[in-house]
Amino acid sequence: MILLDGRQTSAKIKQEIAEVVSKMKQQNNRPPHLAAVLVGSDGASMTYVGAKVKACELVGFKSTLIKLPQSTTEEILLEQIEALNSNAEIDGFIVQLPLPKHIDENKILMAIDPNKDVDGFHPVNVGRLTLDLPTFISATPFGIMELLERYAIPTSGKHVVVIGRSHIVGRPMSILMSQKRKAGNATVTIAHSRTKDLKSLTQQADIVIAALGIPEFLTSDMVKDNAVIIDVGITRVPDDAKKKGYRIVGDVDFKSVSKKASHITPVPGGVGPMTIAMLLKNTLMAREKF
Amino acid sequence: MILLDGRQTSAKIKQEIAEVVSKMKQQNNRPPHLAAVLVGSDGASMTYVGAKVKACELVGFKSTLIKLPQSTTEEILLEQIEALNSNAEIDGFIVQLPLPKHIDENKILMAIDPNKDVDGFHPVNVGRLTLDLPTFISATPFGIMELLERYAIPTSGKHVVVIGRSHIVGRPMSILMSQKRKAGNATVTIAHSRTKDLKSLTQQADIVIAALGIPEFLTSDMVKDNAVIIDVGITRVPDDAKKKGYRIVGDVDFKSVSKKASHITPVPGGVGPMTIAMLLKNTLMAREKF
Repeated sequence: MILLDGRQTSAKIKQEIAEVVSKMKQQNNRPPHLAAVLVGSDGASMTYVGAKVKACELVGFKSTLIKLPQSTTEEILLEQIEALNSNAEIDGFIVQLPLPKHIDENKILMAIDPNKDVDGFHPVNVGRLTLDLPTFISATPFGIMELLERYAIPTSGKHVVVIGRSHIVGRPMSILMSQKRKAGNATVTIAHSRTKDLKSLTQQADIVIAALGIPEFLTSDMVKDNAVIIDVGITRVPDDAKKKGYRIVGDVDFKSVSKKASHITPVPGGVGPMTIAMLLKNTLMAREKF
Repeated sequence: MILLDGRQTSAKIKQEIAEVVSKMKQQNNRPPHLAAVLVGSDGASMTYVGAKVKACELVGFKSTLIKLPQSTTEEILLEQIEALNSNAEIDGFIVQLPLPKHIDENKILMAIDPNKDVDGFHPVNVGRLTLDLPTFISATPFGIMELLERYAIPTSGKHVVVIGRSHIVGRPMSILMSQKRKAGNATVTIAHSRTKDLKSLTQQADIVIAALGIPEFLTSDMVKDNAVIIDVGITRVPDDAKKKGYRIVGDVDFKSVSKKASHITPVPGGVGPMTIAMLLKNTLMAREKF
């Protein structure tokens, strides 16, 4: 069994990006510049945004963090986005989700210039992904594709079962892996809460992508020998034995499934660490205009 | 075995639309107005556009046919599209494909105002479909969804195998049927030219959607008893016994498969006739701004 090591792969990608940025600077070109908008002071959101800013520093990007109070109106936020859209010094930006309830998230995402939408959430970028046109692929699916590619997992003609149909993971994964691309050309089944007899499907799968958000859902009886297992779940489960009082658990019962799998992503340390690296990669693409 | 009769269903939809338009006119509201742009004089394209214009008349829409010579430059065509975008009297329009080779199709489709894109080909509308937001669904997948719905075919939790990953049929069908919607909530497998052992997949399918463009590809040994069969193929096969010298054949071997199927679309007279009705439905939606 081979671990698909997201920490190590992510570090390698960051190093590659740092090298490109270093060359840019040597040639007196402006480095990529990512801005992040944070509304309110939700603890988790602050942590995520902080990590993104820190990653920018690490690879030599310029970064700008725009902190707005919880009481920010939709109108003010839209003005802020307009300012970022028209600022030629900023290549890409993200609006950290979730937003306060008095703000219409869809309206905000629609206002972002698709050419600066490094999160890949704008409908035109989702459409471009669906149509297999160059675009910003959102961080989680992009990270999974990159892991599969870098570990040279064969996907062409393989049967992939994606569990979960979310807009940010299950849906894009099911599209990407069935397209004519690296880590693509797979036969893909998308399963979800209404699926009957999921087990008989996952048992046929060469690759299982678990993205349903139920801790340790996928058990060893559900997978065939030598399957490749991608675990997208991240759930905090109470655990008195841990200092923090909880442990992080994926959608896969790692202990049993890892014994059958040929390759598997650990949680934590698998898909999770890839996301920030892919955000940086998108920002670099935005700087280079593809 | 029940035939999924596209001709009859399409006629019914057109009648429903005609009734809505009739009410509009009674209330002194302007009827929907569809414009079609035809570049050159390709025989098939002229026939298709002619049928669309005729259908508009039938339901009481206003229609405008803009015929441009084969030599039309990309620039002139873009100007024409801009004029249609800004014409408040036109609710929706289509640019008949294929375009002459000296014109970049993607550039043309991108120039159409998404709110008037009743063909549903603009990336933002494809993105909205992928994200399950209200949009114009392109005519063929929209027609299939409508057929499944009107014949009350159960789809929730059923296993659908879509053969073909084209942007205009296979891909949108695989997305739509796995979403939480009428004729949706299915477990969907998308198969294509790289798929191995397709037969073992189609044999498991409750519903097969054949959209690969190979005449009589799906044979009875590939489907299970009581499967629902949707045949999207339309190929002309030479046939001396016919006056025209050819016959129209689908992707399904109708003769044998129809004996096992619970429901099946004939070719011709199945999916085909639905498309113009759905174009009219999209134009009505454009008039009513959803």
